[in-house]
Amino acid sequence: EVHSILNELQPYDIAELYNNLPQKHRPRFLIFLETEQLADLLQELERGKQLDVLNKLGLEKSVKVMDLMDNDDLANLLEDLAPDKKEAFLSGMKQEESKAVQDLMKYPPETAGRIMTNRYVWIRHYYTVRDAVDKLKVFAEIAESINYLYVIDDNKKLIGVVSYRDLILADANEKIATIMFERVISVTVDTDQEQVASIIEKYDFLAVPVVEKDNVLVGIVTIDDVIDIVIREATEDIEKLSASGKAIDFDTKSFVAAYRRLPWLILLLLIGLISGTIISRFEETLQKVVALAFFMPMIAGMTGNTGTQSLAVVVRGLIVRDIDKKLIFHLILRELKVGIIIGIICGFLIAIIAFIWQGNPFLGLVVGSSLVMTLIIGTLAGTVIPLILYKFNIDPAIASGPLITTLNDILSLTIYFGIASLFIAYLM
Amino acid sequence: EVHSILNELQPYDIAELYNNLPQKHRPRFLIFLETEQLADLLQELERGKQLDVLNKLGLEKSVKVMDLMDNDDLANLLEDLAPDKKEAFLSGMKQEESKAVQDLMKYPPETAGRIMTNRYVWIRHYYTVRDAVDKLKVFAEIAESINYLYVIDDNKKLIGVVSYRDLILADANEKIATIMFERVISVTVDTDQEQVASIIEKYDFLAVPVVEKDNVLVGIVTIDDVIDIVIREATEDIEKLSASGKAIDFDTKSFVAAYRRLPWLILLLLIGLISGTIISRFEETLQKVVALAFFMPMIAGMTGNTGTQSLAVVVRGLIVRDIDKKLIFHLILRELKVGIIIGIICGFLIAIIAFIWQGNPFLGLVVGSSLVMTLIIGTLAGTVIPLILYKFNIDPAIASGPLITTLNDILSLTIYFGIASLFIAYLM
Ligand SMILES: [Mg+2]
Ligand SMILES: [Mg+2]
Ligand SMILES: [Mg+2]
Ligand SMILES: [Mg+2]
Ligand SMILES: [Mg+2]
Ligand SMILES: [Mg+2]
Ligand SMILES: [Mg+2]
Ligand SMILES: [Mg+2]
Ligand SMILES: [Mg+2]
Ligand SMILES: [Mg+2]
Ligand SMILES: [Mg+2]
Ligand SMILES: [Mg+2]
Ligand SMILES: [Mg+2]
Repeated sequence: EVHSILNELQPYDIAELYNNLPQKHRPRFLIFLETEQLADLLQELERGKQLDVLNKLGLEKSVKVMDLMDNDDLANLLEDLAPDKKEAFLSGMKQEESKAVQDLMKYPPETAGRIMTNRYVWIRHYYTVRDAVDKLKVFAEIAESINYLYVIDDNKKLIGVVSYRDLILADANEKIATIMFERVISVTVDTDQEQVASIIEKYDFLAVPVVEKDNVLVGIVTIDDVIDIVIREATEDIEKLSASGKAIDFDTKSFVAAYRRLPWLILLLLIGLISGTIISRFEETLQKVVALAFFMPMIAGMTGNTGTQSLAVVVRGLIVRDIDKKLIFHLILRELKVGIIIGIICGFLIAIIAFIWQGNPFLGLVVGSSLVMTLIIGTLAGTVIPLILYKFNIDPAIASGPLITTLNDILSLTIYFGIASLFIAYLM
Repeated sequence: EVHSILNELQPYDIAELYNNLPQKHRPRFLIFLETEQLADLLQELERGKQLDVLNKLGLEKSVKVMDLMDNDDLANLLEDLAPDKKEAFLSGMKQEESKAVQDLMKYPPETAGRIMTNRYVWIRHYYTVRDAVDKLKVFAEIAESINYLYVIDDNKKLIGVVSYRDLILADANEKIATIMFERVISVTVDTDQEQVASIIEKYDFLAVPVVEKDNVLVGIVTIDDVIDIVIREATEDIEKLSASGKAIDFDTKSFVAAYRRLPWLILLLLIGLISGTIISRFEETLQKVVALAFFMPMIAGMTGNTGTQSLAVVVRGLIVRDIDKKLIFHLILRELKVGIIIGIICGFLIAIIAFIWQGNPFLGLVVGSSLVMTLIIGTLAGTVIPLILYKFNIDPAIASGPLITTLNDILSLTIYFGIASLFIAYLM
């Protein structure tokens, strides 16, 4: 009866069951699973547990399971293995499955070629609907249940698409050529995965076909993988924007988490010292008017905040949209205007507060005009730096909030003490 | 021939075409489109352009288009209209469509009830496969082509699901009851949309059925909407984490963008002044040892950075995972450890640098030990604050990087000058 329960469960549920099992019961659980369920399970587990399962299964059983796994998931798993282990698995697998996954691994990560699957059903344009259904029946078990049959010609070129619904609605004797949709939207093997996600999102497709040069069909990318990509890319953006370190989750050990965050922090520590040397240049000014120090954290902080705001808008915008010169110009101009508006309002506010607090109108003037300038420059820094990175094909999210904040510390302190030095006679 | 070209285009392409058309050609373009294409177009446009199209079409044509729109999209559109306009459209629509969309609007935003569609096909368990196919044929045009038929009993209770593929594979005379899958995973009308997205993502479904109390089927949520939700939620998180203001994109006018960012900035400005008053309390200390000011931005900045890092890890983690007391305890302990490790390493580094730079070992000691303490406290602040918000059912992403940074400014300066005051005799 264990079998009949397991058969009713979804892959995710089987994996949850396995994850919650004490270590000592896991081998017995694996024995209960059929090869197909083992493949499902393996696809749902995280890397460490995947390797553990492979160990428990042994080579002979493992390769049988691998034969049934999705190509994209298998490719990811194999790439993390030692070369000799990878070889052993690949040569133990069925020849066509082994070849298929090796084909996938030829493409660079994060491209359509790398995330596609070969578990789709293709048909010919001269098939009848009945032929297509017959072929679908044969391949239904292996193919991902994804709603489309792709039509190819004798050279394997993609020439059309038919949905399961089309098949159901059509007469059995109709020719595929007459019911297929010919304006198929496809991606090429080297299309970036974010681009693929964007196409599926815009067109509301359930899958998109992947072609090589000359429009030869080589695979499909399915929407379930696209959701995973969207989530992973968003997580990555947040990790980069906050410089919080790659792949730290609730289960990450503290030493690992510290190790992943430290490089950024040490870099920022050293950059932060630059602001110290700037202040030390103005030691005399500061000695004369200690009140200047009161407004330092606020000015540096606010400049960092506006920078972070612009940065987030730019980075998130770059993901959704391709940009050209005109748009870059427009964006910089827009942020400049935003900086001016924000600068004038906040600067005016702080000028009055500083005047009332310290009783010196010139201090108000210095603090206020500094804030106007630093907010404008902070906004521009948060806009221009990610755009430059983007132009040089570096991920703009690398320009993290902490980095922009630290750079803006330096910029704002230079401006603040520069202006204060000019008016030093009126401040004392 | 315009018609035949338009018929080959995807809704997204039609919308792109429309968006790129000069204003004066748009009315003519709308005339070329069939009612169904108008519905497709309307679903793809952004709000401002939607309203413009409705204006151009006039009430009579508009309601015909609305009859064909997806319920969820239509509900969103109608909710943004003035009450009298909304009424006019709703009473002009076909009665059953009008009722369906009003049913949707009863549910609160961001719940399954609010994002579901009624364009699905239900069948009865006593149907044969042929009956099901016949019903599918009748409803194929209206139903979202989403691969599943849901099986209900005489009380409209959800009792099974059959995929298009199942229909194709089965014999025409087989009973639905024998081929349907009974362990259907469903959500209730009040399930949060992020929860719905998470279920579809985990199980790799193309849609999930939505039930009311007693398991009565009332709609389905489709995967294309889930992708939109995932993208929107990620964008929202980045907006909140960076306090960058709601819905600012590349096309937002500068005044609007400034207006949306200003509330946060003014709040942060006022909070930032608290750090000013703290420093003013230590005016005497600072007067005696101006060199203390050199390390102020670095200490405040680093505390903000570690806070931002912890914050990002916690906020992103809370999205993926539900948490209980045990996990909260584990997380705070983990981040405490991370803070200690990071604090000791960075503190040691800065102690040596400060000693060498200023030639005073006690200054090194003060700066170093301050940094150890502020980094530990900064890390904890970045962890505990979002967790508290989460416990009080406030979106933890409200605890933005800028907010944590500003709070950490205050904490770190208090600690720094507190320690410095204790050792003031050795610093002069
Ligand atoms: Mg990428
Ligand atoms: Mg979409
Ligand atoms: Mg859409
Ligand atoms: Mg896949
Ligand atoms: Mg997959
Ligand atoms: Mg990315
Ligand atoms: Mg929510
Ligand atoms: Mg998934
Ligand atoms: Mg999966
Ligand atoms: Mg929908
Ligand atoms: Mg939709
Ligand atoms: Mg959210
Ligand atoms: Mg939300």
